[in-house]
Amino acid sequence: MSSIRSYCGIMKMIRFNCDYSEGAHPRILERLMETNLMQTEVYGEDQFCQRAKELISSHLGRVDADIHFLVGGTQTNLTLISSVLRPYEGVLSAVTGHIGVHETGSIEATGHKVLTIPTADGKLSSRQIREMYMGHVNDVNHEHMVRPGMVYISQPTENGTLYSLKELEEISAVCKHSGLFFYVDGARLGYGLASPKADFTIADLARLTDAFYIGGTKQGALFGEALVIMNSSIRKNFRYSIKQKGALLAKGRLLGIQYEALFDDTSADRKPLYFQMAENAIDKAMRIKTALQNKGIDLLFDSWTNQQYPVFEKSQLEKLEKDFVFDFWAEFSGTKNAVRICTSWATREDDTQTLINAINNL
Amino acid sequence: MSSIRSYCGIMKMIRFNCDYSEGAHPRILERLMETNLMQTEVYGEDQFCQRAKELISSHLGRVDADIHFLVGGTQTNLTLISSVLRPYEGVLSAVTGHIGVHETGSIEATGHKVLTIPTADGKLSSRQIREMYMGHVNDVNHEHMVRPGMVYISQPTENGTLYSLKELEEISAVCKHSGLFFYVDGARLGYGLASPKADFTIADLARLTDAFYIGGTKQGALFGEALVIMNSSIRKNFRYSIKQKGALLAKGRLLGIQYEALFDDTSADRKPLYFQMAENAIDKAMRIKTALQNKGIDLLFDSWTNQQYPVFEKSQLEKLEKDFVFDFWAEFSGTKNAVRICTSWATREDDTQTLINAINNL
Amino acid sequence: MSSIRSYCGIMKMIRFNCDYSEGAHPRILERLMETNLMQTEVYGEDQFCQRAKELISSHLGRVDADIHFLVGGTQTNLTLISSVLRPYEGVLSAVTGHIGVHETGSIEATGHKVLTIPTADGKLSSRQIREMYMGHVNDVNHEHMVRPGMVYISQPTENGTLYSLKELEEISAVCKHSGLFFYVDGARLGYGLASPKADFTIADLARLTDAFYIGGTKQGALFGEALVIMNSSIRKNFRYSIKQKGALLAKGRLLGIQYEALFDDTSADRKPLYFQMAENAIDKAMRIKTALQNKGIDLLFDSWTNQQYPVFEKSQLEKLEKDFVFDFWAEFSGTKNAVRICTSWATREDDTQTLINAINNL
Amino acid sequence: MSSIRSYCGIMKMIRFNCDYSEGAHPRILERLMETNLMQTEVYGEDQFCQRAKELISSHLGRVDADIHFLVGGTQTNLTLISSVLRPYEGVLSAVTGHIGVHETGSIEATGHKVLTIPTADGKLSSRQIREMYMGHVNDVNHEHMVRPGMVYISQPTENGTLYSLKELEEISAVCKHSGLFFYVDGARLGYGLASPKADFTIADLARLTDAFYIGGTKQGALFGEALVIMNSSIRKNFRYSIKQKGALLAKGRLLGIQYEALFDDTSADRKPLYFQMAENAIDKAMRIKTALQNKGIDLLFDSWTNQQYPVFEKSQLEKLEKDFVFDFWAEFSGTKNAVRICTSWATREDDTQTLINAINNL
Repeated sequence: MSSIRSYCGIMKMIRFNCDYSEGAHPRILERLMETNLMQTEVYGEDQFCQRAKELISSHLGRVDADIHFLVGGTQTNLTLISSVLRPYEGVLSAVTGHIGVHETGSIEATGHKVLTIPTADGKLSSRQIREMYMGHVNDVNHEHMVRPGMVYISQPTENGTLYSLKELEEISAVCKHSGLFFYVDGARLGYGLASPKADFTIADLARLTDAFYIGGTKQGALFGEALVIMNSSIRKNFRYSIKQKGALLAKGRLLGIQYEALFDDTSADRKPLYFQMAENAIDKAMRIKTALQNKGIDLLFDSWTNQQYPVFEKSQLEKLEKDFVFDFWAEFSGTKNAVRICTSWATREDDTQTLINAINNL
Repeated sequence: MSSIRSYCGIMKMIRFNCDYSEGAHPRILERLMETNLMQTEVYGEDQFCQRAKELISSHLGRVDADIHFLVGGTQTNLTLISSVLRPYEGVLSAVTGHIGVHETGSIEATGHKVLTIPTADGKLSSRQIREMYMGHVNDVNHEHMVRPGMVYISQPTENGTLYSLKELEEISAVCKHSGLFFYVDGARLGYGLASPKADFTIADLARLTDAFYIGGTKQGALFGEALVIMNSSIRKNFRYSIKQKGALLAKGRLLGIQYEALFDDTSADRKPLYFQMAENAIDKAMRIKTALQNKGIDLLFDSWTNQQYPVFEKSQLEKLEKDFVFDFWAEFSGTKNAVRICTSWATREDDTQTLINAINNL
Repeated sequence: MSSIRSYCGIMKMIRFNCDYSEGAHPRILERLMETNLMQTEVYGEDQFCQRAKELISSHLGRVDADIHFLVGGTQTNLTLISSVLRPYEGVLSAVTGHIGVHETGSIEATGHKVLTIPTADGKLSSRQIREMYMGHVNDVNHEHMVRPGMVYISQPTENGTLYSLKELEEISAVCKHSGLFFYVDGARLGYGLASPKADFTIADLARLTDAFYIGGTKQGALFGEALVIMNSSIRKNFRYSIKQKGALLAKGRLLGIQYEALFDDTSADRKPLYFQMAENAIDKAMRIKTALQNKGIDLLFDSWTNQQYPVFEKSQLEKLEKDFVFDFWAEFSGTKNAVRICTSWATREDDTQTLINAINNL
Repeated sequence: MSSIRSYCGIMKMIRFNCDYSEGAHPRILERLMETNLMQTEVYGEDQFCQRAKELISSHLGRVDADIHFLVGGTQTNLTLISSVLRPYEGVLSAVTGHIGVHETGSIEATGHKVLTIPTADGKLSSRQIREMYMGHVNDVNHEHMVRPGMVYISQPTENGTLYSLKELEEISAVCKHSGLFFYVDGARLGYGLASPKADFTIADLARLTDAFYIGGTKQGALFGEALVIMNSSIRKNFRYSIKQKGALLAKGRLLGIQYEALFDDTSADRKPLYFQMAENAIDKAMRIKTALQNKGIDLLFDSWTNQQYPVFEKSQLEKLEKDFVFDFWAEFSGTKNAVRICTSWATREDDTQTLINAINNL
């Protein structure tokens, strides 16, 4: 069982426990400063939100994307999911999916069941989806069981694993065939896109899904998630849902300003900040992963993204936790514990090297 | 996967597929006739409901039981559960529990998650409950996870199995210790009480649980479930919840009249109809079980109640299904299927003997 | 403020306080007796429900009506309304509408606001509907306000008043124009149809509305409401909603048997019981109304249906309430109270005459 | 009917249409800069939130206040209200209350009815509250009607009006007597406290209410509302509700840092920024009010806070709206319109004088 709040309060410690322990990339704060006293329209109908949407659309290569900026991930998930499903429908998710485990029943609070499917590494297969769908929608069980209406996956998953393009295509095909809405939680999407194992692009998500979000909170923004809706059937009146769920930020431009900064491609190398920052996290994570593997330390999941799940001897952990904060993940055996090590856009080179040295010296 | 509607439409077939294929015990219809044109108070505040409550209380040996009559099981479950839980709380249930599988997400529709626990035979153990509770309520996970607020079990279970008195006592102790509301779904409670393996009484349920219901629909009433609330903390204003959920029958006396007939103990042998009818079902079920066992046919669950789950060769089933309707339960192997055979208060002696003969002749 | 439970418990009193104080028409009980031990399919998929639907469809003159039988009015309202509205939509209703006042917030419990419109006599006008719709859906307010999605009216209203055919047509036109679902609560529909002022037919409702229900509970059934859905867009999967709300009666045939009895047209005069019974209530109500008017007693509403609202001197009420039970409605002035007098299918000739005599003797 | 989004997009215009058209007080941005790369605990369990709570508690003079920081007003209202009410309870509000009109049914979406009371100026009286409570909770209506569980008022109201201390005390007394939770929406609380007519303090609110919030979004923060819970009965597990509603900000410190800046009292004059900024808005509003009154222009409400509601000749408005943006409020007559003029913490002296001159020159 994962823990999500095991943060140490001691300031001298180096935190590798989560990817949102800092504020935002300085460029974002600068932009907030520069625009601070401008008077603009509110509720996201300002020029900054407009420009940010255009920048994202351009990256997607799609002019028909309907983009909304929300404050956080749980909020985005519950707003989107509750606006898509009919009252008797549920959402399919891996048993480890964030909506089913760590969002305090927010989906159920909107009236919908999360239909969970077992998984070893956080990923669903198209076969599992088809089987659960068929088990619920057949000639003998139908109206007594929740009707599947949506598939939810996280890319990367809560275990750091990644769906391949082929897997995404297969899930998309099953969803289209069965009339299921396909939604991707991209809280750490940038870290997935920057993975050395990534064979999908953000444009693939626009092509294959009905909706997905491009996470900001964990990727260098103060806060914010960009929800991209591709399925035109739910666009109408979606802002009503945002407002009703308390998710329509009054000073919506704060989100527009941040996403404009993240996706601005007018720099010399034309690489938006969003992707630059993701690369920092992945670079650091891969070096830590290599150090762990060189030391012969097992990894719980085959993760090539910014979350690594090493299994340490408890005695090893005791040593490391004098200087570093990790996220306790699970007791692995009597003598071993698994922890989560996160890197992020903000992870510093010297902290990374200090951790690698410590691992080497175990 | 269970099917719950595989009913054959041909009238000549003998139905063993479910325990509510008929109307009600004739005594109940007689009483409805006798009282039909009386003018009474409505919404269950009539003299018949009053008397029925007194009869049930007397069987429980408790004057402090708060009793409400509702129309059906799903309605009773959703009304009780949603009135007990705080918005962020969920209800623990076996993964096979009726509220989690066959009530179309009715609990989620009221805003609450069903927290499911795997089980081989439909029963939860006190250990499983304690472990799930501890996994959700600890110092690192708490507010990000649904807080367990209630334990739901069925007695007998959806697999025909029964909790022993000791098991009920253990669950009750865990619930009391952890502040969990203990609720028992008694859709087939009478069939459980009449089982040769039953070592608990209806008074034990009143002593050990916070609430339970005494099922009528499957046990000889036209419809109706008697919800018994022992925990005084939720009694206040419970009728508001009944009304809000559309569960306050206008001519509430129809429920009172039926339960009065079921629990009237003024007959010569002083055995209420409810128990007499249950005994009929169990007698027939045990004789069918013996026939199955004598024939060497495996049973999926160790059931000593009115639901039996034999695993037939498909060729055997083909023969039997020329005359009998069963409930398809699951494919057991390439050549074998499991079915559910139900007896009930209405199961006839000659139909039972015809089935036993057919089994013997397989 | 209306009271809805002011029933006197004394058996000798003659009750004119509500129209569901008795059981059912004896013909209904006879049919339940005759069919009692038949084995049928469950959950309303039996031959009785099928035949009852055919009889009702035939009265509507529509083969495309989708008919479902539910147990009670609140249940029917909440199931239909919550299955039609999107999460951010509300239902327009007269401020006196049953769903807004006397159903314990059952619509809000499913997540939807009842948008109320003031009315003197319980009726909405098409103009009021259009104005509220326009006030909510314009270019400046939209996503901050609940979006109207449905119009709910009662026919007859909670004040006994009736919409004319012209008024129904106007409301229907506004609804079609604005994309509002038009739903009619017909808890006492038969009493409306039997009114001397009725200029609409049940076929008009099928033509003009998206859904309406034909009330049984208050019109001679033990319980039951026949929901008629004309709008094909919500038919798909409607049974899921019924089940989820706890409204799918296990022995669904009980509803089919009753509605078959109510709408059977094979009697000598080919007038179904439903209409015969309604005529009894209206005949009695009109004679009481005439007696009241002859005595110079004011009536609160211009009702030509089975509910009459006389305003008595308190001293007059004191005399009458020695023998009769009325429903207290409102204090009219320091010396006068308004009450509701209900007749029903079961109102007896001699009780009616006794009341008329008492009025004459005031 | 009020409009809430009639913002002009032209940049040269001077906006008096709303009080959240700008970013935040520069001191807040400075503090975000200073703390940006610190690593802290997340979800509001950091040292900044802790310090901010201490500062607010100190202003309340209460060590027992339970303080939570949320992002926006609708979110705060729905989270608090849904966590207090039992499923069958509703919240009393003026018909003009923000929760009933401009939050897209967010309260109903959590299952609860807003029970509205008519009001001329946005204020409820203790008498109105008592009467509605008694009308709903009596011996004849109870379980068929929503049970009042809470009183919601805004201070100042949506019309700019203010409750006096005496009025607050009377409402508090009625609430205590009737078991109603008393909740004050303080989206513009600072502007109320700074009003020349204010005779209550923030400590009075802590003494008289069960909960209230100190608005930040409209009063100089980027975003944020400080919810102060005085009633200890709902504190337990309140963070579950925050998380479930998607309202637990991951980088919760952003709220702590802002409220610390707003309530820091270590400046030379020991007057926290929150109160200084409110005074600016009130000073400007009072001068505009005087200009309006001097010109003989009617004011719709007797407002002594930052929102003024002048009734202009349409020809006057045409002139003014060449340079200023107001919020359209209502058509007053064929030739007159009412608008809302807002000042805020950010209203500039020169813009104010320009407006006053324009009024004088009408």
